[in-house]
This record gives sequence, C-alpha cells and structure tokens, in this order.
Amino acid sequence: MLSTTSRTTLGREKQRGSSDRNDLYEVLDSGLVCHLGVVVDGHPMVVPTGYGRIGETLYLHGSTGARSLRAGDGGEVCVTVTHLDGIVLARSIFHHSVNYRSAIIYGRPRLVTDPDERMEGLRALSEQLAPGQWDYARLPSRKELAATAVLALSLEEASVKIRRGGPKDEAEDYELPVWAGVLPLVTSWGEPEPDPVLPEGIATPVHVLSRE
Amino acid sequence: MLSTTSRTTLGREKQRGSSDRNDLYEVLDSGLVCHLGVVVDGHPMVVPTGYGRIGETLYLHGSTGARSLRAGDGGEVCVTVTHLDGIVLARSIFHHSVNYRSAIIYGRPRLVTDPDERMEGLRALSEQLAPGQWDYARLPSRKELAATAVLALSLEEASVKIRRGGPKDEAEDYELPVWAGVLPLVTSWGEPEPDPVLPEGIATPVHVLSRE
Repeated sequence: MLSTTSRTTLGREKQRGSSDRNDLYEVLDSGLVCHLGVVVDGHPMVVPTGYGRIGETLYLHGSTGARSLRAGDGGEVCVTVTHLDGIVLARSIFHHSVNYRSAIIYGRPRLVTDPDERMEGLRALSEQLAPGQWDYARLPSRKELAATAVLALSLEEASVKIRRGGPKDEAEDYELPVWAGVLPLVTSWGEPEPDPVLPEGIATPVHVLSRE
Repeated sequence: MLSTTSRTTLGREKQRGSSDRNDLYEVLDSGLVCHLGVVVDGHPMVVPTGYGRIGETLYLHGSTGARSLRAGDGGEVCVTVTHLDGIVLARSIFHHSVNYRSAIIYGRPRLVTDPDERMEGLRALSEQLAPGQWDYARLPSRKELAATAVLALSLEEASVKIRRGGPKDEAEDYELPVWAGVLPLVTSWGEPEPDPVLPEGIATPVHVLSRE
C-alpha cells in the first residue's frame, strides 16, 4: 500500500487514486524523465530530469553545480512522472479530460556518497533512459564520477493517479448529436540515427534496434 | 528576447538556452500538459495539468477546490512544459543525454474574474488539448463555469532550453568501437476510440480524425 499522508491522500477525484504499489512501479519504470520540484529562495522551481529506480529508492543525478540539485540536497523535493495516454473528448467542454498515469513522490533526498551505491544508482539512471547501454558504452571515469552528484529519494511517500476509459458526461448530454470518445496518444521509437562521424562497420546494437 | 532574471539566466549548459520568443511559443503551443510547481506549507508540489496561451499570457484552470490552484492563487508558481524528442546515445555513459525542448515560466498568477477573459482563457485551454472542440461540443453552463477557477500567468519571466543533434563525446572516445547516435522518440495520435454508448450515425469529426 502507498502511504496516505495528508499530501498523498488525494484531495479530489479520489476514484483516480491507486494504492497499488505495482501501479507506482509501473508508472515509474515505464517513464523516461521526471519533473523535479524544489523550493529555491521560497519559490518553486520545476525541471525535467532523468531518474532510475532500485526497489524502494529513486535515484536522481546531475552536475555537482546544478542549482536544482543543490536545492534538493537536504531540502524537500517533489518528483512527478506523467504519462499522457489520450485525450478524452466529451459531449461537453466541461467534461473533457485526459487519460494519464502519474506518480508523485515527496521526500528529502540524501546525497549518495557510498561508491558502490553511487555506481548502482547511476546504472539505474542510465538503464532507465537507455537500457543496455551500461554494459555497452564506456563506463564513467573517476573524473566523470567526481563531477556527478547522485541523490537517493525514498518511495515511502508516494501517490499514483490513473485515468483510463471514455468520457463521463452529464446524463442529459448523452442525447446530443456530438461525437465522444478517446483520441489515443501513442509514443514510439523512431529509426536510430547514427552519429554522422560514426566509422563504417559499427552496427546499431540490438538493444537499440529492438527497444520497446 | 526572453527576460534574463537570475532564475531564467541558465546556470549551466548556456549554449542550450534560447532567447528567441518564437521558440518559447513553439514549445508551449505544441504541448499538451504542463507541470505546475507550487509551494505548499514550504514544500514543493508538482502536478500535471492543462494550459493554454493567448499572446503573452498562459492560462491554467482547475476545480475551485483543488489544492494546487489554491496554493497558486497569489503565490508564486513555476510552469514547465517539456517535449522529449529522443535519447542521445554516446560512446560513453557520461555523455548520454536527451534531445528535448522545454520551457520554464515563473510568476504569480492572477485569478481571472472578468467573464469574457474567463471564457477566452477556457477556450484557449480547451483548444490546446482538443482543438476544434470548443465550437463542436456543448459549451460550459453557468454552474460549470462557477466550479472552474481560471488563472492567468504572464510569460514575462520565461526561459527555453533546446537540445538537438547527436552525441558529443570526449575526443579520445571517438575511436571506440561503440555505436553512437540518436534514438528518436515519436509521438502520434492513434485511431479515435468512440464512446461505446455513442449512438450510431454520429461520425467522428474531421478535426479529430485529421489531428496532427
């Protein structure tokens, strides 16, 4: 079960909440970037960034000089991952909606200093965005590792919202001669585009070609 | 030119910033949802939500009871719109990246009370998510309007970041026998799915069928 603190107990549209831990993992594991919210000088700041998950821990990373990470180190953050699955077209403008899956995590990330956990966190981050590359590309050097901050955020305080299915209109509107339904949004991988300076004879790896 | 306050002057990766107003409009106008950041009891909160643009104003809406909008009314918000265009696969893990276009807007939204501006703001919000529907579906009733809060956010303080193109590796890594390039991420509309209870004889409107 997901925790139900005052923040993760949904204030509205409770039927869209999910307390299934597997839903949380599914939303996180199928995402590519999150939106990281921090408070800087009392003001909100939201930046898109990569992430990775190992068990009950979300890993974030960034340059050791990035403002968003500096603010996040020790302070509270909010991490939101959103999948937009379709536009819900109702008979009335008011009931237009979107089908989506989103996860929101609150917490205070800790700066990861243990070398092994740093590498495992970076591996999770890398594999989330580009699965198969950790064992294929050149691994980080000591200098590159030193330039990278890794943060760990517990998934303890998290909530998931999912909306699926067609429009819900007012009873009297179902008689209107208005089309209603869902326009699905589909995300897919295009053809890999080789770096123009890539030497001949280096084949596109299977894990890139066959990515799902 | 975009404003260059201390927040919108990019701290890092300056070459990815853009001060072209048209880039800002393009990123916003081609998006579907934004991530709205607010500060609630000193803590960041990031929620996905719809938006619309008219000129130099971004419109947001929500139930009059929603926490995120209550916090945003008068307080400062951060609105981020992100398009993920591809995964940049480099010869080294460290230089993996993403191609993306993102806009970040800071400001204090004002609650829109003028009836005409409220309708125009809602129209912009509706057309952003579902173009063509405002003139097709049933318009909001007085009761529905009363349940909807509309906020206006100036685009005065905004920044745009765009990354395009292939990987940038360390000079010595170009000799590695490692494939490098971009795996594009493509977003497209699927086949419209009619509401199962839709009466026969109501055709899918052209603006839904032909949406680009």
